[in-house]
Amino acid sequence: MKLKLVLVEPEGMINFGFILRLSKNFEVDELAVVRPKFQVDHEEVLRFAAQGKDYIEKVKVYESYEEALEGTKVCTSAKVSGTDTVRDFVLPWELKEYVGEPEVLSLVFGRESVGLTREELSKCDLLLHIPASKNYPVLNLSHAVAITLYEVWKQYRLERGNLPQKPSEKDLEVFMRVAGELAERFVGDEVKRERILIGVKRLISKASKSELRSLLYLLSRCSSFLKG
Amino acid sequence: MKLKLVLVEPEGMINFGFILRLSKNFEVDELAVVRPKFQVDHEEVLRFAAQGKDYIEKVKVYESYEEALEGTKVCTSAKVSGTDTVRDFVLPWELKEYVGEPEVLSLVFGRESVGLTREELSKCDLLLHIPASKNYPVLNLSHAVAITLYEVWKQYRLERGNLPQKPSEKDLEVFMRVAGELAERFVGDEVKRERILIGVKRLISKASKSELRSLLYLLSRCSSFLKG
Repeated sequence: MKLKLVLVEPEGMINFGFILRLSKNFEVDELAVVRPKFQVDHEEVLRFAAQGKDYIEKVKVYESYEEALEGTKVCTSAKVSGTDTVRDFVLPWELKEYVGEPEVLSLVFGRESVGLTREELSKCDLLLHIPASKNYPVLNLSHAVAITLYEVWKQYRLERGNLPQKPSEKDLEVFMRVAGELAERFVGDEVKRERILIGVKRLISKASKSELRSLLYLLSRCSSFLKG
Repeated sequence: MKLKLVLVEPEGMINFGFILRLSKNFEVDELAVVRPKFQVDHEEVLRFAAQGKDYIEKVKVYESYEEALEGTKVCTSAKVSGTDTVRDFVLPWELKEYVGEPEVLSLVFGRESVGLTREELSKCDLLLHIPASKNYPVLNLSHAVAITLYEVWKQYRLERGNLPQKPSEKDLEVFMRVAGELAERFVGDEVKRERILIGVKRLISKASKSELRSLLYLLSRCSSFLKG
């Protein structure tokens, strides 16, 4: 899937610099900018892009909104409604459920000042809304982009990043053997022993590899000590 | 649950302004700042806070890291490891699963330049990591805060924001009656008719209230027309 970010008439260089950085953080494939209000490779932009500044190569400037759109088009807005069809919306974590895995996914963000017009919204297949406080639901543009790209990463690209390491079958087996030895020694009642071992097993099913090893180290030392 | 954000030696006023805004967007209850490198209510900060600038009232400056921590302490880092216990981590969407709903949840973020020290990390109950590109997983501070607060909102405070409106039982009933009338008229084969109505029912189970009404409007007009 090609991931395309479409910014419509962005106004701020700091935001745009941050969005370059985020595009590298979350491996955006094309950054389309419709009629930007500044020079896209301005020094100020690149400063805020930090190590994302080489992503300027993926930027394409468009004169026309329609030409910038491609594939499945998902607009975003802080201003939503359950009764006005144009402003009816889905939640970020429902994205893949609704659009599946299209060849191109275009995520469309409007102006800092006024967002997207009704006409622009009506060209999209879906409207996505980041839920937030009713007192002040309007996020800064770059933060809305961050949250949306994070959700896309989570739903489509998770295997590309760091994931917690779970213990292997073998680690779990060794652990339960040692726990069993200790239970045999310290818990006389068989029914109670079984219940305790079930509790231990459930707990370690939540453990990471390194957490399991920390606890295993402790228990093994106990067990060895007891064996003399 | 009291939601507390703890920033350790933040360096940039723009980031801090954005974090004030985000704190209002996601209803943070206390914003604890340990040894900030700038004046927390500086004009530049308030400019980037936009309508979040009144959140300056929720800011508390601490001299000591330990004093700023409270309740269940969740640190964050871009630098993680599955074998080094101090840098072992969980993913943002697993948060509630691991910590439940404590009285106070402290989310701890380190310096823009070097994050949190090992010693600071070791004081936390859990380390949270935002997965991103292996080529450049380091997010700007305010964007890491945005994504984390969004996940907390999603897991703990969702009912406070806008949610899509699903159709009522009655809406669905009316819709299926109209669809049934049309099917009766246009699909002779009974088995086929039933299959089509199941497909329609499945589709509208995904519809929002306003989407259902759009389609119902069309079908009702058809149905009335046919009845003459």
